[in-house]
Amino acid sequence: MSFLDEVPWNESGLIAVVTQDHKSGRVLTVAWMNREALQQTVETRQAVYWSRSRKKLWRKGEESGHVQKVLEVRLDCDADAVLLRVEQAGGIACHTGRESCFFRKLENGRWMTVDPVLKDPSLIYRK
Amino acid sequence: MSFLDEVPWNESGLIAVVTQDHKSGRVLTVAWMNREALQQTVETRQAVYWSRSRKKLWRKGEESGHVQKVLEVRLDCDADAVLLRVEQAGGIACHTGRESCFFRKLENGRWMTVDPVLKDPSLIYRK
Repeated sequence: MSFLDEVPWNESGLIAVVTQDHKSGRVLTVAWMNREALQQTVETRQAVYWSRSRKKLWRKGEESGHVQKVLEVRLDCDADAVLLRVEQAGGIACHTGRESCFFRKLENGRWMTVDPVLKDPSLIYRK
Repeated sequence: MSFLDEVPWNESGLIAVVTQDHKSGRVLTVAWMNREALQQTVETRQAVYWSRSRKKLWRKGEESGHVQKVLEVRLDCDADAVLLRVEQAGGIACHTGRESCFFRKLENGRWMTVDPVLKDPSLIYRK
C-alpha cells in the first residue's frame, strides 16, 4: 500500500497543506493538494499544490521562481492536514512579495498589515 | 465593521485555523472556527474552535486542561486561513499526548511516528 492511500482525502479528493519555513519557523501558506500533487511533491522534492481556483496542478514558483524545496512531509492525527517544512527560494512565499501569506495581524479589533513587502510583485511576475 | 466581517468564511461558515506554538515554532494543530469561535477566541484570549464532528464549539483544553493561550491572531492573503500563535499548556496539543498532531513523518515512502508521547492519554482524559 502506498503512503498516498493512508491520506484521508476529503470528498473533493483534497487535503489541506500547511507549509512552514524550516529556518524562520514562519507559517508561509495554507494550500491544498490532491493525490497527484502529493505524489509529485514527494518525487520531485518541490512543493506542488492543487489550485482550487484554476483547477489544475500548481508547481509553486513556476512563474515567480519562488519554489519550495521540501525537506520534510508530515501528516496529522485526524484533522486531515499535511505539513511541509521547506526551504523557501527568495525568502518569499506570498504573491504580494512578502515572506508569508499571514501578514495581517489582529490588533485592537483590526487586521493590520505588519510585514514588509520584500519585492515588488510587478518585478516578480513579469510577463 | 467588525474584523469578523472581513474573514472569508466558507460556504459552511467556517475557516481553517493553523495553531503554532510561539516558543518551539511547532505547528500543533489544524482545526476550524466559525464566527462565534473566533469571537470567543479573541475575547477570552484562549483558543475556541468549531468541532465539525460534534457540531459544537470546542473550548480547547476543556477536558484535558491543555488550553491554548492566544498571543497572536493572523489572517492570510487569500487562502482562507487563520494563524494562531499560542502558549500551549502542558506542552501537549494532541489527544494522543504528543506535543503536536503532526507526529507522523514520511520516511522512505512510509508514515513513521517520530514524536514521543509525553503523557498517557488515559491520564489526560480521566472521566
